[in-house]
Amino acid sequence: MSDPFVVVGGDAAGMSAASKAKREDPDREVIVFEKGEWVSYAACGMPYYVKGEVEELDDLVAVTAEEFRDERDVDLRTGHEVVEVDTDAETVTVETDDGESIEQAYGDLLVGTGASAIEPPFDGLDLTGVFTIHDMDEADAIESYVAEHDPETAAIVGGGYVGVEMAEALDARGLDVSMYEMLPRTLQPFGEETARTVEDHLRDQGVELHLETAVQGFDGDVSVETVRYKTDDGGEDEAAADLVIVGVGVAPNAALAEEAGIELGPTGAIATDDYGRTLDAADGSTLEHVYAAGDCAEADNVVTGEPDHVPLALTANRAGRAIGATVGGDPTQTGGTAGTAIVKAFDLGAARTGIVDEEVAREAGFDPVSVTIDAPTRPHYYPGGVKLSVTLVADADSGRVLGASVVGRDGVKRIDTVATAITGEFTVAELQNADLAYAPPFSPVWDPILTAAKVLRGRMEDD
Amino acid sequence: MSDPFVVVGGDAAGMSAASKAKREDPDREVIVFEKGEWVSYAACGMPYYVKGEVEELDDLVAVTAEEFRDERDVDLRTGHEVVEVDTDAETVTVETDDGESIEQAYGDLLVGTGASAIEPPFDGLDLTGVFTIHDMDEADAIESYVAEHDPETAAIVGGGYVGVEMAEALDARGLDVSMYEMLPRTLQPFGEETARTVEDHLRDQGVELHLETAVQGFDGDVSVETVRYKTDDGGEDEAAADLVIVGVGVAPNAALAEEAGIELGPTGAIATDDYGRTLDAADGSTLEHVYAAGDCAEADNVVTGEPDHVPLALTANRAGRAIGATVGGDPTQTGGTAGTAIVKAFDLGAARTGIVDEEVAREAGFDPVSVTIDAPTRPHYYPGGVKLSVTLVADADSGRVLGASVVGRDGVKRIDTVATAITGEFTVAELQNADLAYAPPFSPVWDPILTAAKVLRGRMEDD
Repeated sequence: MSDPFVVVGGDAAGMSAASKAKREDPDREVIVFEKGEWVSYAACGMPYYVKGEVEELDDLVAVTAEEFRDERDVDLRTGHEVVEVDTDAETVTVETDDGESIEQAYGDLLVGTGASAIEPPFDGLDLTGVFTIHDMDEADAIESYVAEHDPETAAIVGGGYVGVEMAEALDARGLDVSMYEMLPRTLQPFGEETARTVEDHLRDQGVELHLETAVQGFDGDVSVETVRYKTDDGGEDEAAADLVIVGVGVAPNAALAEEAGIELGPTGAIATDDYGRTLDAADGSTLEHVYAAGDCAEADNVVTGEPDHVPLALTANRAGRAIGATVGGDPTQTGGTAGTAIVKAFDLGAARTGIVDEEVAREAGFDPVSVTIDAPTRPHYYPGGVKLSVTLVADADSGRVLGASVVGRDGVKRIDTVATAITGEFTVAELQNADLAYAPPFSPVWDPILTAAKVLRGRMEDD
Repeated sequence: MSDPFVVVGGDAAGMSAASKAKREDPDREVIVFEKGEWVSYAACGMPYYVKGEVEELDDLVAVTAEEFRDERDVDLRTGHEVVEVDTDAETVTVETDDGESIEQAYGDLLVGTGASAIEPPFDGLDLTGVFTIHDMDEADAIESYVAEHDPETAAIVGGGYVGVEMAEALDARGLDVSMYEMLPRTLQPFGEETARTVEDHLRDQGVELHLETAVQGFDGDVSVETVRYKTDDGGEDEAAADLVIVGVGVAPNAALAEEAGIELGPTGAIATDDYGRTLDAADGSTLEHVYAAGDCAEADNVVTGEPDHVPLALTANRAGRAIGATVGGDPTQTGGTAGTAIVKAFDLGAARTGIVDEEVAREAGFDPVSVTIDAPTRPHYYPGGVKLSVTLVADADSGRVLGASVVGRDGVKRIDTVATAITGEFTVAELQNADLAYAPPFSPVWDPILTAAKVLRGRMEDD
């Protein structure tokens, strides 16, 4: 009997791996150590809990701890924090909530420690009413704060997708929302065209946007009252804010692995091979029985072929599941990432895949060419169509599709067509020839994605 | 100055080719002969005109005859029927509505003669109130008949997508609708699982379904009053029907080409090469300047690699446009077909791509394996999700995705993901690793297409 499969972290990657390993090899002991109490929850649903569309926080839990234990026979131990990994002895050291210390041997190990919200060096981060939003307890705390303190003004620091989703949520709760973004635009990875459309829509919805604005800190007595930021002329200004959400991104929780001598990649997340196995930092050799997956780990970008850190749910679930299969005796590659993402911003949807930004494409060694087209989601004569803007980016040398971004009130899941084409390394001509579905209630004859490909191809030939 | 580019037929393929050729080479003379009066119309929109959702028949015209003539400088001649093609002399003979006969030399020729509705040998086809629906005049006639004669019962003969769309349209106009299908199921190319779901929904909507029922004919005095059909015991029965739509499929209009010595393919449509060029039936040599496209022509099936006849709008538009580019000096392949189709049936959508039927897959030399899964279009906690059924078919030997069918109240455009994967010759494992977009308002973490791939892959490994 081999030593157990030990999983560090009970969220998407960890629980997917544990469940799959147990299904593949029911006799194998599977132990999951989770330092908190929540397992297998949909972090992406948290803004909708704050908004009030999801009634109970528990609704976001895909599979409960009891179900993992009773139905899936996973030895799930919440309140257990792994504080050390010894890859030579093949053991982990665990501290429990009640101060106990345990040493546990493993046959295979998965590091699924996730990521944490970045906390920039702002003054006043510890004032009441200042939150990040990266776990269920924080979502709970924000919801309670809104319900109990009835704040009137919210400052959201960071214009990424979490910021945009929280703007919608807090607006729905009746707050006046301001958003502060240090860069010249929101939704950085979605490209300029899509970001501008979303920004116009946010302003239409009453969100006060401060772009290229560096927040300095938060002031107040016990609770936050104002947000302080740099002005164009180098001075400082402040604005009322009795609720603050800091959403400036996440950083991989890679310290446990790093301290164990596991190699981190160029992004600062844990380096992995095609099967999610980690490497020994000392000599670069593969640690055959030590895997990493989810928000703490890298995945290969399917466009560049280079390691990337895209902390998104599907990547984590898929890699976890693949590692569970591998550990259970069915070697399975974890798959790459195209960085596909989709976000709802009030009445708009925005989505992106691959490389959208021409600057980023050039840095990756491509010669990017792109178009942005507006096309209807249905023929002009059929009711219910809306305008979809599609930005499509390709490499002028090879003709290969590099990425896309779409934005509109409907139909943004069409990004999946481009994500699939990218995985298949399609040229623009091949994408243009994809046989997509047409009937008036669903699409014009030329789907907007095909129209974008058609126009981009025309431009590439003219050059 | 080369002889003009002559186009036979002014619909999707023909007008796309004419417009594109003129854009590529504005000095080239482009002449289109169209025997009717309607050009460049959306045949797929006709059921929605009958239904009343499209107000004017003219709304279905994408580009008017005047626009082609004045803005695009295309010499469009309606009421001109090409009655003979001489590929040696490189001329066509044209008869005009007023009995004139013209001979016209061509430098390049496109045969875009379309398809016609099949009229089975039913008694009473010429009774008033019996219609096929394949052109604008018929759509107009049906709409007028409903408006003026106020029929109460409709019999639809044929359970293909036109039949299903007309059932919805006539139900909306207040008629009691019965549908007669000779085969054991409707929507044959959509596979059994999807067809059964649609059939249940049709019955829920009050459509009386007669499967495996051979219609014999129609009876009435001047106007149709009843439909007569064979019963299970070999006898005959009849049912009231004061409006009849015969929609049992279309046949390519290939006679003009055949009489000119142009080769027809195994499907009975005009054979073409990768650029849409036709072949000499006498010796199989390529007719360099004679093209065919649209509903009269074959296209290569991307799954089988064999010639196929899929008379759908996108195939016609794309091939026409490619031929226009080629003729204009930019050689462009017409692209294959995956047979992707999508249909609205009352509140349901159904879509298909590739090979769905296992029998058809076996005939094409594959060893098919398939699954049907039900999955939600959104996470359980987010409002507005519906059940989507996905049937995914693969070849057990190669692992290659062969086809799919989906049915549900929303989200059926997801078929495009599989259509794209088929074009890229993805295996099921590759499809499972496609990085599709996830956020709660748009999809569960595992998109239903990915779930189907996951389950099918599991099944393939177990075998």
